[in-house]
Amino acid sequence: MMVVDLVVLDVNLATMDPEIERPYGAIEHGAMMVKDGLICWLGAQSELPEFDPVTTPTISAKGAWMTPGLIDCHTHILFAGSRAQEFEQRLNGVSYQEIAQQGGGIATTMKATRAADHEHLFVVGKTRLNALLSEGVTTVESKSGYGLDCDSEIKLLEVNRMLDEHHPISVQSTFLGAHALPPEYRDDADGYIDLVCDHMLPQVAEQSLADAVDAFCENVGFSNEQTRRVFAKATELGLKVKCHAEQLSNQHGSELVAEFNGLSADHIEYLDEAGVKAMAKAGTVGVVLPGAFYFLRETQQPPIDLLRQHNVPIALASDFNPGTAPLCSLRLMLNMACTLFRMTPEEALLGVTRHGAKALGLSDRGVLKVGMRADMVLWQVGHPAELSYQFGVNDLLNTWISGKLVQ
Amino acid sequence: MMVVDLVVLDVNLATMDPEIERPYGAIEHGAMMVKDGLICWLGAQSELPEFDPVTTPTISAKGAWMTPGLIDCHTHILFAGSRAQEFEQRLNGVSYQEIAQQGGGIATTMKATRAADHEHLFVVGKTRLNALLSEGVTTVESKSGYGLDCDSEIKLLEVNRMLDEHHPISVQSTFLGAHALPPEYRDDADGYIDLVCDHMLPQVAEQSLADAVDAFCENVGFSNEQTRRVFAKATELGLKVKCHAEQLSNQHGSELVAEFNGLSADHIEYLDEAGVKAMAKAGTVGVVLPGAFYFLRETQQPPIDLLRQHNVPIALASDFNPGTAPLCSLRLMLNMACTLFRMTPEEALLGVTRHGAKALGLSDRGVLKVGMRADMVLWQVGHPAELSYQFGVNDLLNTWISGKLVQ
Ligand SMILES: [Zn+2]
Ligand SMILES: [Zn+2]
Repeated sequence: MMVVDLVVLDVNLATMDPEIERPYGAIEHGAMMVKDGLICWLGAQSELPEFDPVTTPTISAKGAWMTPGLIDCHTHILFAGSRAQEFEQRLNGVSYQEIAQQGGGIATTMKATRAADHEHLFVVGKTRLNALLSEGVTTVESKSGYGLDCDSEIKLLEVNRMLDEHHPISVQSTFLGAHALPPEYRDDADGYIDLVCDHMLPQVAEQSLADAVDAFCENVGFSNEQTRRVFAKATELGLKVKCHAEQLSNQHGSELVAEFNGLSADHIEYLDEAGVKAMAKAGTVGVVLPGAFYFLRETQQPPIDLLRQHNVPIALASDFNPGTAPLCSLRLMLNMACTLFRMTPEEALLGVTRHGAKALGLSDRGVLKVGMRADMVLWQVGHPAELSYQFGVNDLLNTWISGKLVQ
Repeated sequence: MMVVDLVVLDVNLATMDPEIERPYGAIEHGAMMVKDGLICWLGAQSELPEFDPVTTPTISAKGAWMTPGLIDCHTHILFAGSRAQEFEQRLNGVSYQEIAQQGGGIATTMKATRAADHEHLFVVGKTRLNALLSEGVTTVESKSGYGLDCDSEIKLLEVNRMLDEHHPISVQSTFLGAHALPPEYRDDADGYIDLVCDHMLPQVAEQSLADAVDAFCENVGFSNEQTRRVFAKATELGLKVKCHAEQLSNQHGSELVAEFNGLSADHIEYLDEAGVKAMAKAGTVGVVLPGAFYFLRETQQPPIDLLRQHNVPIALASDFNPGTAPLCSLRLMLNMACTLFRMTPEEALLGVTRHGAKALGLSDRGVLKVGMRADMVLWQVGHPAELSYQFGVNDLLNTWISGKLVQ
């Protein structure tokens, strides 16, 4: 007789486990057991171990589908202020240049974020996490990057840790000091990279405020050489790296991050085969961000076929941010990945489960399997392809995080 | 002293009233009064008439913005079954032709819809209305068109009337018998149009099951001449008409519907200036459907500038349907209208309020104004442009329909 905390009966499991060689790693007519926040048994219901039905909390899923909790492995949820009126100005014909001259663009967000206190940022972060939680998201990566000075960047990472502690969602904290050049360092990008490497990174590492370090390697961001300095310092401090790479042009940021055995190269519209090969060799995940692609009306497609050919895992994330992806919805990204990038529904779902976990360096989640965290979602759908196909109708029945029912 | 049912204080009103010559028809620091389901006063709070604060329900909006309840003037929410697995097949490389040979496409939905009873269709319709209601939508147009035989089309329209009666959302019923050719009439489109005109339409009119009549005028749908027969019969029976027009090619459906003083021409990517002029003259609304544009990866833009030049009101709708727009979200359409069609946030909001109402021939809603239905939504936003800019974060505070708080 097994003593467990939860039994789920009559459930179709989209395990996403590669060892189950069926689409979605599916186990139909399945069952699952949870103990101490972990999955302790799953399989065909006909093989369910004995348990005490009187003392064990048991639910019937009535044939609904269960997936791993969804993972949004690339977001910028921590910012203050709004860029809605800039958006409106642009659509009324005001040029980017004029808006920049007014002090608009990322500077607007930076100013508001610097001025915001921990509590305000905690509240806005929580609101955005709540939106993702309502879609079945159980792990969210959250980047700094709108502070752009030492204290403000530390403040953002501290709020990440507060959110992880006080919100049901598991929050992974990423230090993105090298996001953009703050006005204090206009015309001195190298000087700002000195600040990031010599002052910010050591403090971030010492206080254990980040799970990874990111940089924006782009012709409008930091050069490959500047990015390399950030990654070298992060690696020296024992921090994993990832990269905003090849979004607007090919700066070979993906090869660079692969050289550091990085977690992921993100955006990657302009990634070439050399970059794909480097990523494959290093085990670096390709993270595609169709929300930014859509919002920027980009036409260059990320090289999905090349990534497939070289077996580079493709993750999928919202990139929620105020400048280029004001869409706080991971479910919408499933549809966009299929519609815009012609990924299959199974690839899209892998991108927000197993591959999303890998992009964060997390081996305890993203798959329904014995020993994994009991992060899981029950969906009122007839087939897991529904999750990528239909958007907007509430099909979420229940979400558990570490075995706890959260909705 | 005014005796009213509700007073809203400290509210910013985006009235959308053209007589208030400010963007969004805005009244900041406003207040509003409701009686018997209608707006009975609105204006600057400093001019608020006296009322009894003890006996009158009063809320403070604390500076939040109020808009008219949103109107989704073009949907196909009533269908059974799912096309998710076809979507998956296509993304796995199966051709449209092969899927059609398997009996897929619209035939799948037709079969499932014919087989579904009133109760099942009521439940799926309710689920979709609930999704729209949670976004602040208070009026929804719902088309028949997946029955394609007399009994099944009547069944769908009956379900529309049931939904209107039992759901808080106001449901406008549209008869779209001429949606596609059912298999019984393969190679006999004229025969099917006979059925629509001689059997379906008279029954629809006699039983008052529809508020308008629609047809799909397209090279893959019905010809201009066949559509004309439907519109002539509908007009003879006293029913208003609208048209799925110029979606994939220019069949001059917009000119045709304008000739019948139709309510709206919908889709209109391939609309030309002659069509725009005809619509302007007839007062026919142009309804743009960016969800279908997005999902079909269309590149031909609807002629927004021409519509502006000729003062044709532009409405905006979800077109939620299982084949070409499986996105059940009007809020997402606000963002898509701006992002994909370069409409301004104000135009987008007009499209789901004042112009959405006009597309349905409804003069009692779509604007916050004395004498209008008290259909209104309170939003936690700093500016009405937020509603088009940001998506996914829940910013809805309250919704009233006919003065009743529904969420
Ligand atoms: Zn990003
Ligand atoms: Zn339609």
